[in-house]
Amino acid sequence: MLNLQVTGKTILSSIRCQRKMSSTCSSYAFGPYKIDPREVFYATPLSYAMVNLRPLLPAHVLVCPRRLVPRFTDLTADETSDLWLTAQKVGSKLETFHNASSLTLAIQDGPQAGQTVPHVHIHILPRKGGDFEKNDEIYDALDEKEKELKQKLDLDKDRVDRSIQEMADEASQYRSLFDC
Amino acid sequence: MLNLQVTGKTILSSIRCQRKMSSTCSSYAFGPYKIDPREVFYATPLSYAMVNLRPLLPAHVLVCPRRLVPRFTDLTADETSDLWLTAQKVGSKLETFHNASSLTLAIQDGPQAGQTVPHVHIHILPRKGGDFEKNDEIYDALDEKEKELKQKLDLDKDRVDRSIQEMADEASQYRSLFDC
Repeated sequence: MLNLQVTGKTILSSIRCQRKMSSTCSSYAFGPYKIDPREVFYATPLSYAMVNLRPLLPAHVLVCPRRLVPRFTDLTADETSDLWLTAQKVGSKLETFHNASSLTLAIQDGPQAGQTVPHVHIHILPRKGGDFEKNDEIYDALDEKEKELKQKLDLDKDRVDRSIQEMADEASQYRSLFDC
Repeated sequence: MLNLQVTGKTILSSIRCQRKMSSTCSSYAFGPYKIDPREVFYATPLSYAMVNLRPLLPAHVLVCPRRLVPRFTDLTADETSDLWLTAQKVGSKLETFHNASSLTLAIQDGPQAGQTVPHVHIHILPRKGGDFEKNDEIYDALDEKEKELKQKLDLDKDRVDRSIQEMADEASQYRSLFDC
């Protein structure tokens, strides 16, 4: 479980950000699924970042283009640039916030690379020494999580791992890290 | 081993590209190492793509910023955009060229994420069904390769896996895929 402390300042900042984000977008698509805006903690006109249903590590988040396209090559130049500038910003903030020292950034681009939801998404995972027994074990786990992600989104009502409230709380805290 | 066929047209195109690339850059840094320009098959003023000393799969290549910076967050916005637009273009061309159907794109950003050479680099691997027994095994192998990469670059004279000629031939063929 994540250990997140929320201060009064954080809550006020989050409310301001939530209002601003709500005014620029009403909903977020992730493949065939609709994402609750409370799970989204950062957004631009072309990209958004959301917390994970079952994070592999603290702050294992996803960054996606707003437009529903399955493959990385389907993105326009503007979307590609914006997506990765968003990932760069989000990764840097969350690495500092979680006192991590490295980041894993990966796209499973297409089904033969392990993609299960046909909508481009970057996995971002802040890393620390010893977070996995072997550093590369995270990838096995990442692939498992990708499969679970689809199953869980398909069986939305059966979610037992993280409540929307827990995810909203985490997203709210991350939202406060960005100047918006 | 890669099965690469080179046609007369390919060779001519490669020579033209090589000339153009040579005129814009004299050398490529990869962390503390100097990369032979013959290993580089695509370059922009900010980024370059090179073949791998010991590819994990056919067309396992690396895309790097020209500027030597260790972490993804160290890149300017222009460098970040250019790096990923380069990766998008390179990935798409090599996926088609190798009759693959997906791509793995990953940055091991910092030592705790498995990075061994302190210079930002994107691993790009065209993927096919069944290329690994389990799709995610590629990541274990990727981590192994990252370690080997450093060892091999450190022990340049002891290279036994791929000759510079073999790498130059592969790079030459890939160079012809780009309009330059």
